[in-house]
Amino acid sequence: MTANPTAAILVIGNEILSGRTQDTNSNALARFLAPLGVALKEIRVVGDEEGEIIAAVNALRARYTYLFTTGGIGPTHDDITADAIAKAFGVGIDLHPEAFAALAARYAERGEAFNPMRQRMARIPLGASLIRNPVSIAPGFQLENVFVMAGVPSVMKAMLEDVAPRLRRGAVVGAVAVEAAVAEGDIAEGLALLQQEHPKVAIGSYPYYRPEGYGVQLVARGTDANELETVALGLNALLAKAGGTPKRL
Amino acid sequence: MTANPTAAILVIGNEILSGRTQDTNSNALARFLAPLGVALKEIRVVGDEEGEIIAAVNALRARYTYLFTTGGIGPTHDDITADAIAKAFGVGIDLHPEAFAALAARYAERGEAFNPMRQRMARIPLGASLIRNPVSIAPGFQLENVFVMAGVPSVMKAMLEDVAPRLRRGAVVGAVAVEAAVAEGDIAEGLALLQQEHPKVAIGSYPYYRPEGYGVQLVARGTDANELETVALGLNALLAKAGGTPKRL
Repeated sequence: MTANPTAAILVIGNEILSGRTQDTNSNALARFLAPLGVALKEIRVVGDEEGEIIAAVNALRARYTYLFTTGGIGPTHDDITADAIAKAFGVGIDLHPEAFAALAARYAERGEAFNPMRQRMARIPLGASLIRNPVSIAPGFQLENVFVMAGVPSVMKAMLEDVAPRLRRGAVVGAVAVEAAVAEGDIAEGLALLQQEHPKVAIGSYPYYRPEGYGVQLVARGTDANELETVALGLNALLAKAGGTPKRL
Repeated sequence: MTANPTAAILVIGNEILSGRTQDTNSNALARFLAPLGVALKEIRVVGDEEGEIIAAVNALRARYTYLFTTGGIGPTHDDITADAIAKAFGVGIDLHPEAFAALAARYAERGEAFNPMRQRMARIPLGASLIRNPVSIAPGFQLENVFVMAGVPSVMKAMLEDVAPRLRRGAVVGAVAVEAAVAEGDIAEGLALLQQEHPKVAIGSYPYYRPEGYGVQLVARGTDANELETVALGLNALLAKAGGTPKRL
């Protein structure tokens, strides 16, 4: 598991920090990365401020195998991600011929003006490769280990198709989950022992409070499917011993 | 606006990074802080790893007026937040008499064992004050400018009642939002000019793609209600000029 590639996500946008928008891109990316065996280690959200973006990009790209950013690559004044990335890498930025041609064709086809603000979306840091956007054409880009994607969730997700083949994959971390209407505190000791016996498996305990009553979900993650099944049996036994009827999720 | 207190959120939990759980606590906290005039500047998510938690806590508490953490204060082995916070501050941690008594009473009342794992929830860093938990009793705590809260959303929200009176408030940042079925690129130039004319107002542009068609939401934020209204009229005019029928949200 230690050899698995690692990743961070940087979400860029005032609308997340103001609470107006619930970020769903991080969760979509987390679910995209897990089956590829890429270990997501950190998520950050910063506002539309160049200095903040540069600092976060440089901290995260140095530390993890991959950094994925979402947000701030549209045509308006608050879209400053591409420039911030160029500055973070200390490279120039200019209109990218392929991106420019694709956008020009798109707007011509729709009879809309390819005005200077729209042309901004073709400004790509020098040395970057484009990430295809089948939804609205304006591309994302990859610069070294940083993948820069749109903030609109449907566009971000569409870009992942072009991102997936570029990633090194690791051993896939499987998961088993079991739940029962049992108090977390009644199984905590046995759970700690089970965790000690299986240090390569990460066991998480998540209490829930539902209208019909409380209970706990137990989740075990690891790369060895056999060991996961052993742990799953242990989780079942713990929940049953505490008087629950374990349900595999 | 510059004198407003600032804040960061640190979400602690493997379940967010694995994609199994969609974090909603950050959004709830963002919506809690906005009307208090506390400016949320950054959100981070890290896993259940002590070193990661300590590093993030120390980076964020030094930089912002307040830090709010959620997650990792339950009775199970993966609940390591209280110890990590104590280490981040370089203080000891011990059973807190008031927390211990409240938990003991709670479990006695329910006829449940107040076992050693449950007693862990009364371990509080030395010098911290408790944050009341009316839902499940196990308290959060405040140590200097750091507020440590539960990860279960209903419990986290309930703790905010006890947190709110402890916060210094700033000028409330108001918001106006307008939308229309207009292409973002058609209003981008006018929008940039409007932003230049009102540097104290932050104008954001958020395209949407819905089954019935695309459009854009424009959001202006600022502390001066009169200026916000002026900007709102400007946003309306831009959208109307581009052929849209602006709708105030």
